[in-house]
Amino acid sequence: MARPSKPKLSTTAIAEAALNLVDAHGEFTLPQLAKALSVSASSLYNHVAGRDEIIELMRGRAMSEIRLPDLRSIAWQEAVRDIATEYWTSYSQHPRLIPLLTSHTVRDITTLRVYDALAEAFALAGFGPKRRLQAITIVDSFVLGSALDAAAPALVWEPNAESSRYFKEALDADLSDSGRPRATFELGLSMLLAAFGQQAPARANDAEDC
Amino acid sequence: MARPSKPKLSTTAIAEAALNLVDAHGEFTLPQLAKALSVSASSLYNHVAGRDEIIELMRGRAMSEIRLPDLRSIAWQEAVRDIATEYWTSYSQHPRLIPLLTSHTVRDITTLRVYDALAEAFALAGFGPKRRLQAITIVDSFVLGSALDAAAPALVWEPNAESSRYFKEALDADLSDSGRPRATFELGLSMLLAAFGQQAPARANDAEDC
Repeated sequence: MARPSKPKLSTTAIAEAALNLVDAHGEFTLPQLAKALSVSASSLYNHVAGRDEIIELMRGRAMSEIRLPDLRSIAWQEAVRDIATEYWTSYSQHPRLIPLLTSHTVRDITTLRVYDALAEAFALAGFGPKRRLQAITIVDSFVLGSALDAAAPALVWEPNAESSRYFKEALDADLSDSGRPRATFELGLSMLLAAFGQQAPARANDAEDC
Repeated sequence: MARPSKPKLSTTAIAEAALNLVDAHGEFTLPQLAKALSVSASSLYNHVAGRDEIIELMRGRAMSEIRLPDLRSIAWQEAVRDIATEYWTSYSQHPRLIPLLTSHTVRDITTLRVYDALAEAFALAGFGPKRRLQAITIVDSFVLGSALDAAAPALVWEPNAESSRYFKEALDADLSDSGRPRATFELGLSMLLAAFGQQAPARANDAEDC
């Protein structure tokens, strides 16, 4: 019998194996990655320059399912909502990847296209460059924090005997709702979009920012 | 000469050593922790029941610098702003701890007091239990995402030849501003507080939530 042929090493296979390690352990090392792929570390270096490139490959893989809206056919608020929701969905699946990604400069092309689209949506809203960067960052932070919340255990907080009734009442209101993270993300996003709407087009006293 | 006496093992020392490991590697194991403290794993078990308890100890340590406002002397918006800012400051120093914490039920007393205070502030705003929990979660998510942003490299995004001018203009506006993360966090927090202000007290059509 012929031996099954070994899957060919590729950047896709490397990204997927690294993502599996990070999902499980919060981190990866090149020796662990080589072992998971049953190759030598030097084989890895035929495909990637090093750790930073692997992080960008994981970023691209995590973002690969994102569908960007057609900015010419919908209002900018809907565009931002669509992009942020796709982004949240992707990162909710890989919460332990998030701090690795946020600690590295974004160079992955797929991911940069997401930010291109966000920047264009906020430009359509009349936001000048500085406000645009602030708006992108605020959406980014809220999406990433909410993606971590989506990966939280069903019991997020366990109050104790000293906890206030204000907090206990709030916890009792909603503990068993499996749709909680998404509904809360959507509510917060709507609040931010309404606030952006009040700022757009940029007011006179922000003119120096534009 | 007498040998220097070995520092006594304590939950504080365990929390600090675990936090150092997580800051450096994004994770800790009990064998690594025992090695870092120059003790046996069984010595650790004389002080902590296991990994979950150590995570709660790290949470308490990261939150130990937080000063809570006197809710009777300031407006609820200022209370939420103060709590969220203290919380952001603490977590900005330990970005890699964040996904470990968000994936575990909060039981640490110091941390629960922070949520008690947030719950009380939103109760003072007239938010019923369900809205209160949503508001707490939205603030929590924005703080944690912004704390990750504060730990980002100075160059967050590196655009390429295909990047849109909307995005490049935005990046050019603000790249070298070391105060960017804090200013952006404060702007987003103000936007959320204004939106919460518009919701408080809860409107008639939200009555079923309260």
